[in-house]
Amino acid sequence: MLYAVIMAGGAGTRFWPASRKARPKQLLDFGLGRPLVEETIHRINDLIPPERTLIMTNSEYVDIVSELLPELPKRNILGEPACRDTSACIGLAAAVLLKEDPDAVMAVMPSDHIIRPSELFCATLASAAKLLATRKETLVTFGIEPTEPATGFGYIKEGEKVGEYDGTSFFRAKQFHEKPDIAKAKAFLDEGGYYWNAGIFVWRADTVLGCIQRFLPDLHDGLSLIAEKAGTPGFTERLNQVYPGLKKISIDFGVMEKAEDRAVAAVRYFWDDVGSWRALERLLKADSQDNCVQGEFLGIDSSNLIVSARGGMVATVGVEGLIVVHTPDATLVCRKDDAEAVKKVVEQLRDEYR
Amino acid sequence: MLYAVIMAGGAGTRFWPASRKARPKQLLDFGLGRPLVEETIHRINDLIPPERTLIMTNSEYVDIVSELLPELPKRNILGEPACRDTSACIGLAAAVLLKEDPDAVMAVMPSDHIIRPSELFCATLASAAKLLATRKETLVTFGIEPTEPATGFGYIKEGEKVGEYDGTSFFRAKQFHEKPDIAKAKAFLDEGGYYWNAGIFVWRADTVLGCIQRFLPDLHDGLSLIAEKAGTPGFTERLNQVYPGLKKISIDFGVMEKAEDRAVAAVRYFWDDVGSWRALERLLKADSQDNCVQGEFLGIDSSNLIVSARGGMVATVGVEGLIVVHTPDATLVCRKDDAEAVKKVVEQLRDEYR
Repeated sequence: MLYAVIMAGGAGTRFWPASRKARPKQLLDFGLGRPLVEETIHRINDLIPPERTLIMTNSEYVDIVSELLPELPKRNILGEPACRDTSACIGLAAAVLLKEDPDAVMAVMPSDHIIRPSELFCATLASAAKLLATRKETLVTFGIEPTEPATGFGYIKEGEKVGEYDGTSFFRAKQFHEKPDIAKAKAFLDEGGYYWNAGIFVWRADTVLGCIQRFLPDLHDGLSLIAEKAGTPGFTERLNQVYPGLKKISIDFGVMEKAEDRAVAAVRYFWDDVGSWRALERLLKADSQDNCVQGEFLGIDSSNLIVSARGGMVATVGVEGLIVVHTPDATLVCRKDDAEAVKKVVEQLRDEYR
Repeated sequence: MLYAVIMAGGAGTRFWPASRKARPKQLLDFGLGRPLVEETIHRINDLIPPERTLIMTNSEYVDIVSELLPELPKRNILGEPACRDTSACIGLAAAVLLKEDPDAVMAVMPSDHIIRPSELFCATLASAAKLLATRKETLVTFGIEPTEPATGFGYIKEGEKVGEYDGTSFFRAKQFHEKPDIAKAKAFLDEGGYYWNAGIFVWRADTVLGCIQRFLPDLHDGLSLIAEKAGTPGFTERLNQVYPGLKKISIDFGVMEKAEDRAVAAVRYFWDDVGSWRALERLLKADSQDNCVQGEFLGIDSSNLIVSARGGMVATVGVEGLIVVHTPDATLVCRKDDAEAVKKVVEQLRDEYR
């Protein structure tokens, strides 16, 4: 059976002041009319029902996620007592699923991306599941065709084609590259056959857990200790005891770079990782002054702005090329080209974490 | 006796979003630690006690002014049921004062200016009172020596010297000029002997009321009708009946331009009319990045800013030359050179007046 594992633990420091410790990026609405995590659930609804959807999130977000997603059984929201990166998170989900379904196939995805249309995303997941029906041990990752030499993503180099299902082609994932510098990124694009690593994976739970056992044996031991109690009243206690001590490593470094049998799906849907406020330029339609606006805004002689007015309004006079974000207790004004540097604001505020 | 008449009726649209209909400029704090109207009262305290201080304000600000200034007898706060400009406002004050003191001398001043030091301001008021002891019918206005060819003030041309008291010189006010264009303003400065009209006046109540009777007889009739009831329970009712129908004209146009016996005091104190957010550059000490900041602020690669964070914080990245104002329900971002245009924001928002 196909299960969804939605990772919703991040903080989204580049979305200050809208994102805070108490309301991270995946719980924010970016012009879609509902928070990203809700959007993510609804995107897969037609393929994977709530009963087979697992949300992995910080324990402090469990209540708010549960409120946002009343259709989800409460036991399907798993609160991590500490952030231990994606190997631990995915491994835990795999171990828990395996207890109920030894043939579980997991579609692992972040909760804070925008993907359109949903139908094509679901079709791609289904295609990957079809591939796994014959190639049980393959680790499938979804690759996005690069539109620019971005330095913010890892890249995957394709090898020979291993299959095609309902229009989606799968290639051997020949190599995983960490986030490149701009020169290397340009070289990748010139050479061709590279994909952005979107952090979306489809695999059998037993396969990925086997890889963790092989490449990260200590992590596997810890996960086994936790999974032992899955479905019993002692689960949360065990989770809180063991999880914070697990090895903190991403699934890319911990598993994908070391595994042999891995494939990349050449996806065809629109994808945006909503990486910074600049994403609003891609997600919202600009007005006649080239302003991308979310919320109440009045611009006088103002153009080429990104405005997000949350719980109040923004007015501007005589400015251009800025990001302006209003929340009731903080305002951000940032040059568009400095959108990535917003995380520095959070770093500097970290002590009092506002 | 010397009385203070403080005009506190304005709206201050250039200070949006801090100034609103419910909290106009004179009720705001501009880095002094207390609202301008409170500052104005305290400035004259040593010369004119609260018992002899009259506040003329909108009826809707009476309660908040009364709360800010508990030392002021409640009957000294006069709520105008409508805004009828300064001739009606000053005439009403004169008529009310005359009922109690036929020798009343009035120091008329706006409530939203910054003047330093208080001692010098009080000394200038006292000097003007001395002048009036011998020249009972003179209308005295305070003239500010221009520091630049400003187009936002009226100008007064000095004539021959009429007196000097404790270091303050008084000249015949030869001519009143409306706000000039920049060429004319430059010509004034080149020629010399011009002062900015600061809207601060000292005169006997009977003198100014006599001028109103002569130049604005209808207004005088209305004021007499109201003053008839001064100090009786029917006063507010009469005020509300008559005041909204009074002629709306400024004291400069209605009286000063027509009167013959008028003098200008060459004042020596620091004066700022706090005309727009740019005033903060003059009132606050800039930090090492040339940012003038009121409230909580974090700037990364940011310089030459004016920041007012009210009920929250402001963070900026990579910007310069801007005015940024945060309030819980609205944010303003404005190029410094467009500070005057902030009133356009209010005009455009007027329907819903926020």
